[in-house]
Amino acid sequence: MNEPLLQHINSPADVKKLNKDQLPQLCRELRQQMIETTSKTGGHLSSNLGVVELTVALHRIFDSPQDTIVWDVGHQCYAHKLLTGRREQFSTLRQKDGISGFPKPHESVHDAFVAGHSSTSISAASGMAKAKTLNKDPHSTVAVIGDGSFTSGMAYEAINNAARSGDRLIVILNDNKMSISKNESSLAKYLSAMRAKPNYFKIKDSVQELCHHIPLVGRPLEHTLQKLKATAKTLLYGSNFFEDLGFRYLGPVDGHDLEQLCAVLERAKMLNKPVFLHVETQKGKGYKPAEENPGEFHGTSGFDIETGKSKAKLGGSNFSEEFGKHLTELAKMDERICAITAAMKYGTGLNHFSKEFKQAGRFFDVGIAEPHAVTFAAGMASKGKLPVFAVYSSFLQRCYDQILHDCSIEKQHLLLGIDRAGIVGADGETHNGLFDVAMLLNIPAVELWSPATYEELRWSMEQALYHSDGVCGVRYPRGGENAELAALCQPQNWQLLNEQPNKRNLIVTYGRISSEVLTAAKTLNAAVLKLTKIFPVEEEILTELKQYQRVLFVEEGIKTGGLAQYVGAELLERKYSGEYRIRAVENRFVPHASPAEATALCRLDSMSLINDYQEFFE
Amino acid sequence: MNEPLLQHINSPADVKKLNKDQLPQLCRELRQQMIETTSKTGGHLSSNLGVVELTVALHRIFDSPQDTIVWDVGHQCYAHKLLTGRREQFSTLRQKDGISGFPKPHESVHDAFVAGHSSTSISAASGMAKAKTLNKDPHSTVAVIGDGSFTSGMAYEAINNAARSGDRLIVILNDNKMSISKNESSLAKYLSAMRAKPNYFKIKDSVQELCHHIPLVGRPLEHTLQKLKATAKTLLYGSNFFEDLGFRYLGPVDGHDLEQLCAVLERAKMLNKPVFLHVETQKGKGYKPAEENPGEFHGTSGFDIETGKSKAKLGGSNFSEEFGKHLTELAKMDERICAITAAMKYGTGLNHFSKEFKQAGRFFDVGIAEPHAVTFAAGMASKGKLPVFAVYSSFLQRCYDQILHDCSIEKQHLLLGIDRAGIVGADGETHNGLFDVAMLLNIPAVELWSPATYEELRWSMEQALYHSDGVCGVRYPRGGENAELAALCQPQNWQLLNEQPNKRNLIVTYGRISSEVLTAAKTLNAAVLKLTKIFPVEEEILTELKQYQRVLFVEEGIKTGGLAQYVGAELLERKYSGEYRIRAVENRFVPHASPAEATALCRLDSMSLINDYQEFFE
Repeated sequence: MNEPLLQHINSPADVKKLNKDQLPQLCRELRQQMIETTSKTGGHLSSNLGVVELTVALHRIFDSPQDTIVWDVGHQCYAHKLLTGRREQFSTLRQKDGISGFPKPHESVHDAFVAGHSSTSISAASGMAKAKTLNKDPHSTVAVIGDGSFTSGMAYEAINNAARSGDRLIVILNDNKMSISKNESSLAKYLSAMRAKPNYFKIKDSVQELCHHIPLVGRPLEHTLQKLKATAKTLLYGSNFFEDLGFRYLGPVDGHDLEQLCAVLERAKMLNKPVFLHVETQKGKGYKPAEENPGEFHGTSGFDIETGKSKAKLGGSNFSEEFGKHLTELAKMDERICAITAAMKYGTGLNHFSKEFKQAGRFFDVGIAEPHAVTFAAGMASKGKLPVFAVYSSFLQRCYDQILHDCSIEKQHLLLGIDRAGIVGADGETHNGLFDVAMLLNIPAVELWSPATYEELRWSMEQALYHSDGVCGVRYPRGGENAELAALCQPQNWQLLNEQPNKRNLIVTYGRISSEVLTAAKTLNAAVLKLTKIFPVEEEILTELKQYQRVLFVEEGIKTGGLAQYVGAELLERKYSGEYRIRAVENRFVPHASPAEATALCRLDSMSLINDYQEFFE
Repeated sequence: MNEPLLQHINSPADVKKLNKDQLPQLCRELRQQMIETTSKTGGHLSSNLGVVELTVALHRIFDSPQDTIVWDVGHQCYAHKLLTGRREQFSTLRQKDGISGFPKPHESVHDAFVAGHSSTSISAASGMAKAKTLNKDPHSTVAVIGDGSFTSGMAYEAINNAARSGDRLIVILNDNKMSISKNESSLAKYLSAMRAKPNYFKIKDSVQELCHHIPLVGRPLEHTLQKLKATAKTLLYGSNFFEDLGFRYLGPVDGHDLEQLCAVLERAKMLNKPVFLHVETQKGKGYKPAEENPGEFHGTSGFDIETGKSKAKLGGSNFSEEFGKHLTELAKMDERICAITAAMKYGTGLNHFSKEFKQAGRFFDVGIAEPHAVTFAAGMASKGKLPVFAVYSSFLQRCYDQILHDCSIEKQHLLLGIDRAGIVGADGETHNGLFDVAMLLNIPAVELWSPATYEELRWSMEQALYHSDGVCGVRYPRGGENAELAALCQPQNWQLLNEQPNKRNLIVTYGRISSEVLTAAKTLNAAVLKLTKIFPVEEEILTELKQYQRVLFVEEGIKTGGLAQYVGAELLERKYSGEYRIRAVENRFVPHASPAEATALCRLDSMSLINDYQEFFE
């Protein structure tokens, strides 16, 4: 057993001080640390285990932060964090006031760009590389992006623009082979073998010569492409595609062979032009349970290291499951219903639907392509189908124009299942679903529900599908229902809870936060008007509100442009003369913390609500 | 001179009744009609002239509306409108209560899907084709899309998903060669020659055999690709790229050869699988001035048929010009400033900047790729540049998540030049800039200006660039400034106009509509509080407002989630006890009409404002 190394690594400079022979040990220690921490804190383990050698190699060859490393999505930044001065805080991963599970420039100068949503890294990195070129700064900019992210149009727009920029931009494809068939791999390896010849770069700058020697287009490429990632893969494996565009293509290289990685990165750095480097990695590498079940350890909420068994409490459903199951039930009775996901089949509970209806051609995973998903749904709707697109609230943000232009103008009838609406917890600011209501309210003729119980969820789905038209959104939180609400609430547009003999104090709210509101209301002797259908707001609701002397609107969403402000303005236009206050997320992003902590941070917990109510009105 | 034909065409069935020899005459008459009408009404002439034969052929071979034709963007739907029962109304093109310049399903059953924003057609058409497959409906679905639209990621997402769907989907690339170099064309023609052999489809289903016979990868493809549209072109001309994906590729065919077009469409229809048909057309075809200057006749506002000379009044600047010129001046003094457009160099006035700074590498046309544009800008900003993205308000809708996630979280400092903010007129509902304020308000830490004069515009740009941080937006209308406002207004955050001795009546407003408000206010003896910096709203403004007994907020933008509601809610939270009303665009889309007519339609003209003010408050 050698002396531990990681504990002496406080910056990338320390990585460079090690001798080559020590690096495998460093990699082992990095993995060890990640496994230990995520077993307790949860996190994205599989992809992080896959890029340990790549990260070490990057910090051997490049000088962060002068050389810039942009991690796409950010599911692969743990080793990077451990090597860039955050080793000691690593045990606070994804916890309140601890380090984020995603790259955050405000956390470290080594986190060059924010990440969390997919497929932005090449755009951002090409902007940085361009700035460096203009500033005559000779340092490199590196984007590390997974193959899944290539199904998004934004990655395509970026490579289209970046390839011929002439800037020192290195795009590293972290190809973890989750979705890549043997045949393609062998094609890629054929290319690699050709290119690895030491004299290749000396012989020929352009790619044509090479191509003459490869029976490339003669290969049965067509039939081996999987349906979903077809274009992405053709981009990735289309041999000279990237070179045609203007990139210098290098690879594929074994992403766990440190020597090869360092050599190819050194070469990429020296080329001083846009380089596309293809690296093959294994998800979960180095931890057997994750190697065997990379999907399960993609995002884990903690596990037993010995067995790999999840610590997540079993039993108890959640809104995603309930959504997926009820949609499946409805679809059994109505063959017009089709379901769409953007690479989130399990997260959105659509695995149930997929199991039942994939064969029948009624289930679609379009890849990380939310804009396409919405307009594809609109096309189906225009021909009499009832399409349902289930998507996380924060990713729906990518579809604003598609909802407005392609769906709302002609009132296409479709259902958006808006998952992870509200605070999500440990994933933090990029993943909280705090904007969907404000974003959708301003689109004409959108109807919205925000159920707080499973029964309300099922009812809302039916209301949306069968008693409404145009764009309908049903939004529901991460996690499960509150038992007290489940017992109290009937499925209906709105409901008064904790009714008071007088019409003095009222708290209006909707969704998950209703349980906190109800608790506060009991202490405050306030009635609660809980909305389930949140938009449009019926006149009778405004009439009801006008009767109260004091109204507090509690909203688990952004304040500006949200429902509470809408209702306030409508009341004022109706000459409401009582007092009206809003408790919503004051225009800020909410960082990672447990859901309860993040709720408190926004002063949306019952204790804060009680305090603030009293301060507002007394 | 033969008997006129077009006057007897009342539906696609009538097109089919003609004999082949009559079709060239029909095409001439269609062109004649388009030229005559657009010379008076204005419109998109060049691209419409280019697809006359294609449109006739489509209606010969397919049966609309059972077979569905989806026009991308919609700049090519005039012949389609003339052949599908709207001949008699065609003279009302783009006028109030007349027919729209874009496809509108509510206008005709033959307009299968709304269009106006680019690159949506393949997504929509593939949804329709999927619905037909599921419904066992054997009819075809056709998407017609230009080569420019292929620079958008959404088109890429769509072909990625559509290619292997197995549905009866025909994607027609309307390649008008505006951007395509000779060499690529010859490569494509080589392919076409191979494929046109009558026995090709009998011999071989897959493409490999063919490829062996083409020295395709040996061609100097790389060096002939233009910088900007590199990927798009590689997609279009990458020979077997579409076949690799799963499309059957046909073409290229001469888009003005009716016989060839009909033959290839017939073949495409018979294939019963996704087909990619490449059609070459000439922009402006058949009208000499447009053939010679297709750019000028892309969008025309009326012209003299004989000479081709524009009827647009010369002299007088407009906001886009002023923006472009002032940015150029600022950039001469500050080399950090860079400018980005998404294929709208002239429309946004950035041609001035381009002329001055393209050589220096500070100007970027990223194609129709707004999401990339924003994140690219954010990348530049993170490295100390001052990027400016000039974009039409309605197209900025495509960037909601990029602004929020990639810019706002880490407060990247960049300037959005939001052109065509407010009502635009004849382009109608897809192009009105009525959503940008509501869309941006809910993104944390965005600062917004809405100047009403050129001087205010210049001042706002400087405020945004040099006295603010984070995401800044300066929004300005289509057209020019109002002379009265130009005389009255000083550049400052806000200003009182038509001040009254008492603090009784106040109208709050911003932007272009301020001139209507001022006129109304004079009649109403109301003061006007005109905002130039519209967000965040300073406390002193709310304090000022609270002093008035009656406040009307007039907003040329969507009501829900807009600034007027924000201010109303803030006032109510501050216990404002006066009367408050809002006149904004009630949650609807505003159809095509002249700007003045559309303004009146929204009751934002001075006359309506006077009436409504009196009704609101008396």
